[in-house]
Amino acid sequence: MTREELFQNIKRKQSFLCVGLDVDLKKIPQHLLSADDPIFEFNKAIIDATADYCIAYKPNLAFYECYGIKGLQALEKTVNYLRTNYPDQFIIADAKRGDIGNTSKMYASALLENGGYDAATVAPYMGSDSVKPFLGYPGKWAILLALTSNPSAAEFELQPLEKGGYMFEEVLRTSSTWGNADNMMYVVGATQATMLTQIRQIVPDHFLLIPGIGAQGGSLEDVCKYGINSKCGLIVNSSRGIIYAGNGTDYAASAADAARQVQSQMATILKDYNI
Amino acid sequence: MTREELFQNIKRKQSFLCVGLDVDLKKIPQHLLSADDPIFEFNKAIIDATADYCIAYKPNLAFYECYGIKGLQALEKTVNYLRTNYPDQFIIADAKRGDIGNTSKMYASALLENGGYDAATVAPYMGSDSVKPFLGYPGKWAILLALTSNPSAAEFELQPLEKGGYMFEEVLRTSSTWGNADNMMYVVGATQATMLTQIRQIVPDHFLLIPGIGAQGGSLEDVCKYGINSKCGLIVNSSRGIIYAGNGTDYAASAADAARQVQSQMATILKDYNI
Repeated sequence: MTREELFQNIKRKQSFLCVGLDVDLKKIPQHLLSADDPIFEFNKAIIDATADYCIAYKPNLAFYECYGIKGLQALEKTVNYLRTNYPDQFIIADAKRGDIGNTSKMYASALLENGGYDAATVAPYMGSDSVKPFLGYPGKWAILLALTSNPSAAEFELQPLEKGGYMFEEVLRTSSTWGNADNMMYVVGATQATMLTQIRQIVPDHFLLIPGIGAQGGSLEDVCKYGINSKCGLIVNSSRGIIYAGNGTDYAASAADAARQVQSQMATILKDYNI
Repeated sequence: MTREELFQNIKRKQSFLCVGLDVDLKKIPQHLLSADDPIFEFNKAIIDATADYCIAYKPNLAFYECYGIKGLQALEKTVNYLRTNYPDQFIIADAKRGDIGNTSKMYASALLENGGYDAATVAPYMGSDSVKPFLGYPGKWAILLALTSNPSAAEFELQPLEKGGYMFEEVLRTSSTWGNADNMMYVVGATQATMLTQIRQIVPDHFLLIPGIGAQGGSLEDVCKYGINSKCGLIVNSSRGIIYAGNGTDYAASAADAARQVQSQMATILKDYNI
């Protein structure tokens, strides 16, 4: 999906919401556990309930890998279901991969070529070799970790450098020369909203994937105030706040309500910015 | 496996070789492609041929994930085969995972609890939250990326910090307080052998996992000269140089020869250091 197509979806649906499909069998409604494939059943119901209110889905691969082959089969079914029934959704593999060049090529192929994803999150520590293989697929995206939403982000990402600025700024500055705003995005935690001003100075045009709204405590208003650009430039993720909004038999309706509520906040904001 | 058990294996086998099981269907002997499960067939033959000469195996997960569910099933079979037939081998999931705390917990569970691995490689960028979940399994290990063997390691890992030293030294210094030499190791590329002196000043006791010997150009002598300690403290990985030593029907014998050759070099070195 191109940047323009993504922007058109955002305008049309008045939403820049991404629903995080982080399925935990301990948290899903317990009546689903007797189904043939509880993970897929849950995802399918959540997708059908929320697709009108979001423009992207983001399964985090850890939540599937921890259930072994069965978990990965459920993930494959989920991605196929999205591809078939909701072709306008942007599908992000939240995988945080990264390795030496010849190995990153394998990860990129697994996710962007064979996996059916539009984008994959990538870790920057090992540098350009580990990221560039994800940039070779037209219409596909690498989403590089820049400044994450977890408390210990401060330990390395916020290390002041001898040359000035923080480590994450060096990551933004250097990596923005490897690709462009049409094949790279950045992960910036919503808990770091005030940092978005500095970030927008370095990458004014790139889309930012913003986790940390809801359960992790970030504010949507702050994120938009400091991070929005003329093409929106934001994909805001919510996982637990939407998919676990309810845990009875009406869990899908609760998820729909939660997603609709976020979308309606987003619509108000987008109007303010004439998008 | 405890540090002492690992050391005893090294002494007994006079080897600190790890064989990297990075299977690429384009590179394995083509007569295997007609087998039911070519990946597992190849791994099984390589393991049987090399187990006498090494103390560890390290499948890199990218090479399996790129073949989808089939690849992951072959990997699962490979780990089970090792666990059953070679219980004294140290099995490393080269996964380079890392995410926010609750998600890293899922990766740790997938690899160290359900996956049957002794250790998993972990990326440090997101800080302690993302690494600590891997430290909660007795006898299991997190192997943190410190200074990697790829050319672009220089971009971020070798960034000079305002407080002095390089980024990778800050990673070593900070992370060594999260665990200890009994549950953490570090990845240090063989192509960075002269840096090992500085590294040993920060982490004198930790085991170092050293990739980059062979295909990537690192020297075994240099690595030992600067990195060995009284408990050996080194696990040196070779992948392509061993598993693709031959590609005819006698590929396993060629792999055995290549592994034996490295082991014999290692035995000479270990004797020099009275190990």
